[in-house]
Amino acid sequence: MNFTSDSASIVAGILAGTRRAAARAISLIEDDDPAADTVVRELFPKTGGAYSVGFTGPPGAGKSTLVDDMVQIVRSQDQRVGVIAVDPNSPFSGGAILGDRIRMMRHTVDPDVFIRSMGSRGHLGGLALASSRAVYVLDAYGMDYVFLETVGVGQSELEVAELADTTVVVLMPGLGDSIQTIKAGIMEIADIFVVNKADHPAVHKTIADIKELLRIDGRKRAWTPAIVKCVATTEDGVDELWNAIGKHRAYLESSGELELRRARRLERQILDVATARLRARVVEASAHDASFKEALGNVVARRLDPFSAADLLVAQSREHRDVPA
Amino acid sequence: MNFTSDSASIVAGILAGTRRAAARAISLIEDDDPAADTVVRELFPKTGGAYSVGFTGPPGAGKSTLVDDMVQIVRSQDQRVGVIAVDPNSPFSGGAILGDRIRMMRHTVDPDVFIRSMGSRGHLGGLALASSRAVYVLDAYGMDYVFLETVGVGQSELEVAELADTTVVVLMPGLGDSIQTIKAGIMEIADIFVVNKADHPAVHKTIADIKELLRIDGRKRAWTPAIVKCVATTEDGVDELWNAIGKHRAYLESSGELELRRARRLERQILDVATARLRARVVEASAHDASFKEALGNVVARRLDPFSAADLLVAQSREHRDVPA
Repeated sequence: MNFTSDSASIVAGILAGTRRAAARAISLIEDDDPAADTVVRELFPKTGGAYSVGFTGPPGAGKSTLVDDMVQIVRSQDQRVGVIAVDPNSPFSGGAILGDRIRMMRHTVDPDVFIRSMGSRGHLGGLALASSRAVYVLDAYGMDYVFLETVGVGQSELEVAELADTTVVVLMPGLGDSIQTIKAGIMEIADIFVVNKADHPAVHKTIADIKELLRIDGRKRAWTPAIVKCVATTEDGVDELWNAIGKHRAYLESSGELELRRARRLERQILDVATARLRARVVEASAHDASFKEALGNVVARRLDPFSAADLLVAQSREHRDVPA
Repeated sequence: MNFTSDSASIVAGILAGTRRAAARAISLIEDDDPAADTVVRELFPKTGGAYSVGFTGPPGAGKSTLVDDMVQIVRSQDQRVGVIAVDPNSPFSGGAILGDRIRMMRHTVDPDVFIRSMGSRGHLGGLALASSRAVYVLDAYGMDYVFLETVGVGQSELEVAELADTTVVVLMPGLGDSIQTIKAGIMEIADIFVVNKADHPAVHKTIADIKELLRIDGRKRAWTPAIVKCVATTEDGVDELWNAIGKHRAYLESSGELELRRARRLERQILDVATARLRARVVEASAHDASFKEALGNVVARRLDPFSAADLLVAQSREHRDVPA
């Protein structure tokens, strides 16, 4: 059966809770298939029910194990959870491909847990846009929670983390000069800090470092980021982390901040989609346009600069219907 | 004296070899100052003389020390060199701000070495675009070589590495499961692999890993990436690295590949600039347009999906001169 040609049946399948339909939708998103647009458009009105939590931090901090623990807590409360593990450096996508994913196997037979890895394949509009679409799919599929896990702390990982209602930054003691690894961008997005592997002697130093960074950061904050110690492998402190997530959620909901955050996120998303569409149009124009090839030749020969060539291209992509540039 | 208002004097200063003018131009680029456009446009016809080398790889692999060694070799040959150290995670920019930069101090009094760090501040068109503009400035300033150094291996670091004529990927032995840290994207851009800290016993394993990755990668390559062992701190192997860079350059020049690479890079750059311009227009339209605010309200209320809202915005930004969308 070819689902690709039948976005209506995928949408119906997802709303009826068919796992395979959800998986198929995410594959369409990963393939930049035009049908993905249709599917997500149709699903969008059914979204908004899931609460999303992002987990980010340097490689090796134990994010996967921690997410695994969180999945177990959610399941013990009889709620449903989707996990999207994002690796911007990997061309691979699909089921349990990330090495760490293997530890998640204990959940893969549970029909109320949906786990998916996403790599950097395709994604014309960027990995953040593709991930946000996958979140919509899992939201409409009826998940109570969607966890977004990233492998590192690069630019695209931060963008993915920004898709979450609550962002958890996972650190570990003794990470070289640990203060250096807590990059600037991360301080701005952290709602909760976890110091994982807290049985390490340097844990106090790491916590002191985080507090110091929060102090010198100096912004006025309505919410002071919580700092939680964990040992994910033994599940020490994981209940405290879950409570901290619940407290942050309660704060967001009672203060009206959740609505504001989500509105800002949607606005950014609209701009990202619009930019991606415009870029596609420009690429299209450049591929088929003889005058662009000529302009490129002039740039290569240093007779024209790339900025003026870009201006020509923008003018062309905008006005090629009737008025010549 | 206010240089900002006087892009002509900056351009004249750079072409006359005034260091302060070059520094000022890069600051304008970092500030997304419109004058930066004018400056780079004017300088562009004078570029193409510098050969650029990118150094990328995981943090801690010793890139800064290695670049420092390369600077010394270039200077011993009485040639001039610019270094742009790019940290996409740092909001800081300017002189010697990256910690590692301090080791470069021995070169900072040398008028024929120009060192500059660039952080993530601003850069509407992305860090790669900002870095490429800085390369043009140093090229026009008369540098024989421009070295681009990144702090890690994230998406934006790979984009920066792609600005270089020759890309050197710096690895080190014993980096956990080292094979895992050699991310997919890196294999595609590496012209030369350096295994730094090669006095470590695991060096043979790392070299075997690289060879294995090249083998399973399986693409037909006209140039087989060189693998060089170094100990940057003692300068062991750094001459071999410099020779490998020279060999790769000779290959690119004799095969015509250098011209092709540079033309492709310019084409990508034109598309990036055009996209940035279009994005700016969309953001502008969204900020001032009452109908966009209404559309956003409808998206938040789930009455409209973000993709349809983006389409409206694109239509508007394109047609707002006369025909209403």
